[in-house]
Amino acid sequence: MKLIFVRHGLSEWNKLNQFTGWMDADLSEQGYEEARKAGKKIKNAGINFDFAFTSVLKRAIKTCHIVLEESDQLWVPETKSWRLNERHYGALQGLNKEATAEEFGSEQVLIWRRSYDTLPPLLKPDDPNSALNDRRYANLQKRTIPMGESLKVTLERVIPFWEDHIAPAILDNKTVLIAAHGNSIRALIKYLEEISDDEIMAVEIPTGQPLVYELNEELIVTKKYYLD
Amino acid sequence: MKLIFVRHGLSEWNKLNQFTGWMDADLSEQGYEEARKAGKKIKNAGINFDFAFTSVLKRAIKTCHIVLEESDQLWVPETKSWRLNERHYGALQGLNKEATAEEFGSEQVLIWRRSYDTLPPLLKPDDPNSALNDRRYANLQKRTIPMGESLKVTLERVIPFWEDHIAPAILDNKTVLIAAHGNSIRALIKYLEEISDDEIMAVEIPTGQPLVYELNEELIVTKKYYLD
Repeated sequence: MKLIFVRHGLSEWNKLNQFTGWMDADLSEQGYEEARKAGKKIKNAGINFDFAFTSVLKRAIKTCHIVLEESDQLWVPETKSWRLNERHYGALQGLNKEATAEEFGSEQVLIWRRSYDTLPPLLKPDDPNSALNDRRYANLQKRTIPMGESLKVTLERVIPFWEDHIAPAILDNKTVLIAAHGNSIRALIKYLEEISDDEIMAVEIPTGQPLVYELNEELIVTKKYYLD
Repeated sequence: MKLIFVRHGLSEWNKLNQFTGWMDADLSEQGYEEARKAGKKIKNAGINFDFAFTSVLKRAIKTCHIVLEESDQLWVPETKSWRLNERHYGALQGLNKEATAEEFGSEQVLIWRRSYDTLPPLLKPDDPNSALNDRRYANLQKRTIPMGESLKVTLERVIPFWEDHIAPAILDNKTVLIAAHGNSIRALIKYLEEISDDEIMAVEIPTGQPLVYELNEELIVTKKYYLD
């Protein structure tokens, strides 16, 4: 039983060194190229997907589409969910990381970025960038929509999607693509490999590198490797 | 209540004047451009989709993705179904239309193209081009997979998808995009407008032109127009 993660590549905001989170930044030209390469590796490895899962943010959706297209399986059913979104970076979203370090001190920024359960400064609900104003979240109750998340909070909203959609597909012997973000993938990996709160923050997921997990019938990881 | 059709633009096989049907021909550069223009018109008209439906053929899927992307709503949930595929052109698939007219006579070809209920010459189940050999139809019972379709047969497999997926969404006041093919759209229009078997064959759906249907609570057409 197989699961393949692809983390989206460089976005326009990554290039500007800005906190992105739930902001809907587009892929950069390099990001497109990373997705195409990932798709070719998947094609070369002969991996046939049954389902694809992605977030509601275009940098992950496009990565999903490009990977499917390059591997000749654009027809594969795809489900998009806010639960696979990047960690919500609260009021830091849109700020330059260096400028933020100058304002709040680099130690504080390191805590926001590297602590498992510290929330970033929260966005105000009436902020124009609040997800409350975004049609794609209109089906959610207001209290469900975050104004900022730690990795812990991210994990808590990612795992229900794993339990309800991804795990049942894998248990049904389906091969699954998850095209998502650094922190939503980190959350899934923490859960899958039972990585501790301390250790997970040091786990880096390279962009555009298809990461294969082979699982047994208990969904315990038996093998893990990157595709060449 | 609103429904928007977009017929995919020029494919690589259209350019070669070949019968395409269920063959998975890609969009041509002109086809991409038609899709982008359709997306921009939809954006200018301020149309917000709740759901997108497309076939399992890449020329329609890509049209769907490009339209959603150009209108800033790539996050909209999308369902792909073989029921929205182009009419299956049987053993004519892959043949040049002119060469076919020379071989079978242009009158016979006209009948195949313009008669409502005449089947094309059927594909043999063991033909390498048979959909039986295609992983995307692996969930279908063999007898469900066509070896060639008239428009009548096409309509009979399109309408269950309308009844089960599209009509319920519209009745729930959702605005729906259908990115599909000349004949699957024709089938839906015949059903919606109750067009006769004779008249439907003369109905041409222009490519890349967003076609809006406004419907009342009985799903009776109250207005129909192309977006500028």
